[in-house]
Amino acid sequence: MSSKLLLLSNSSAPGKGYLEHVLPAIDTFLGEERTIYFAPYALADYDGYTAQVAKALKPLGISVIGLHTQQKPRETLASSAALFVGGGNSFRLLKSLQELDLISVVRERVASGALRYIGSSAGTNMACPSLRTTNDMPIVQPTSFESFGLIPFQINPHYIDPDPRFIYMGETREQRLLQFLEENDVVVLGLREGTWLHRDGQRLQLHGETGARLFRRGQQPQEIEPNSDLSWLLDVPAHFDQRA
Amino acid sequence: MSSKLLLLSNSSAPGKGYLEHVLPAIDTFLGEERTIYFAPYALADYDGYTAQVAKALKPLGISVIGLHTQQKPRETLASSAALFVGGGNSFRLLKSLQELDLISVVRERVASGALRYIGSSAGTNMACPSLRTTNDMPIVQPTSFESFGLIPFQINPHYIDPDPRFIYMGETREQRLLQFLEENDVVVLGLREGTWLHRDGQRLQLHGETGARLFRRGQQPQEIEPNSDLSWLLDVPAHFDQRA
Repeated sequence: MSSKLLLLSNSSAPGKGYLEHVLPAIDTFLGEERTIYFAPYALADYDGYTAQVAKALKPLGISVIGLHTQQKPRETLASSAALFVGGGNSFRLLKSLQELDLISVVRERVASGALRYIGSSAGTNMACPSLRTTNDMPIVQPTSFESFGLIPFQINPHYIDPDPRFIYMGETREQRLLQFLEENDVVVLGLREGTWLHRDGQRLQLHGETGARLFRRGQQPQEIEPNSDLSWLLDVPAHFDQRA
Repeated sequence: MSSKLLLLSNSSAPGKGYLEHVLPAIDTFLGEERTIYFAPYALADYDGYTAQVAKALKPLGISVIGLHTQQKPRETLASSAALFVGGGNSFRLLKSLQELDLISVVRERVASGALRYIGSSAGTNMACPSLRTTNDMPIVQPTSFESFGLIPFQINPHYIDPDPRFIYMGETREQRLLQFLEENDVVVLGLREGTWLHRDGQRLQLHGETGARLFRRGQQPQEIEPNSDLSWLLDVPAHFDQRA
């Protein structure tokens, strides 16, 4: 496994411009490669979204090509070196990826090390085994919740701590993730906004300034400090649909 | 259609006890009927959840029986007069309702006027044609997002207005519902916490003090005053999976 992944909690750190907080990380991650295909399917306006990403990455000398402009996106990905899957609604995104038959080609080429994968928000959800820890509304129905599975654990992007000023009778994010653990014995990493994961083969590292929160069945949620090595998460087995 | 529905945004109004804000409404809604079956499937602890509801309704002289205690819940519902579907995780709830084969019996008996239906939060999501406007995390995968369809439009329970004090880079609730409208031409009523809908046949009325917000494709979101008559919503056609 020589997978190369950059998984962003979200595309904008508070107070910063679109992708601004991760430009140096993207620059290093892509190495010599200066062309990236962009999957815009999580939003409705494919052209507008692709243009936004192209503008953000232009200072790095990176060309961005919308996958939706390709006649046969599956064949494009079978021979390309870098893919960026953008955020938006993860149900809409997964449904499109299924309809375009892109799941297996991305899974295989990332695992072989041939395709570098950048995900943001919903694009980071897609890198997990399943959609099950998304924050998004199920506005459309994908065939299955199974996603790329580029890592063996779940990420909750935009992870947010309970805020006592905020009066809301629904569940906090932590309560939602504990409900997930009632039904699934699978690690969940809550990535706070402005943080990201970098995977290079069997090495996994947390970046950004605000850290993460780790949830495991039967254990107290655990605070993960910025810049922690999380490679061990790549070896923890996942068991879905196993009620506690 | 002589459907009788009481659809609560949520089970606790801010600052009030469990179901406290709707006890008089439940009392009136049930009429002479003093036994209600409770569907606890949205939470993991069926017994504990049923006991909580039983305690809350005891002052009204109402007996609460957990559907999970019934050998054949489908047959129970085929001859009972009142059902309360409680909140929690709506994906887990719908999956259980499908596995127990309860969808069609509830749909038919409510439509005929034989079964009174009370829903709270996830239980209110179930009354809609689809799960698609839930706020919950998709912790398990139901066979389909289709739910009871006791009304022809969608409700978003726990509807919450944007709060400028709250720094979050993910979507606001309004943005999520606008994304729903990009993919579906279906009315959505955002029910603020502490509000509820009462349907009696072709009459539909909003109750509670904080009003609601109505979303329709191609229109500005519209504020709905407390105690508004919303019967007209029962005649608006719904078109799912129809991209704008």
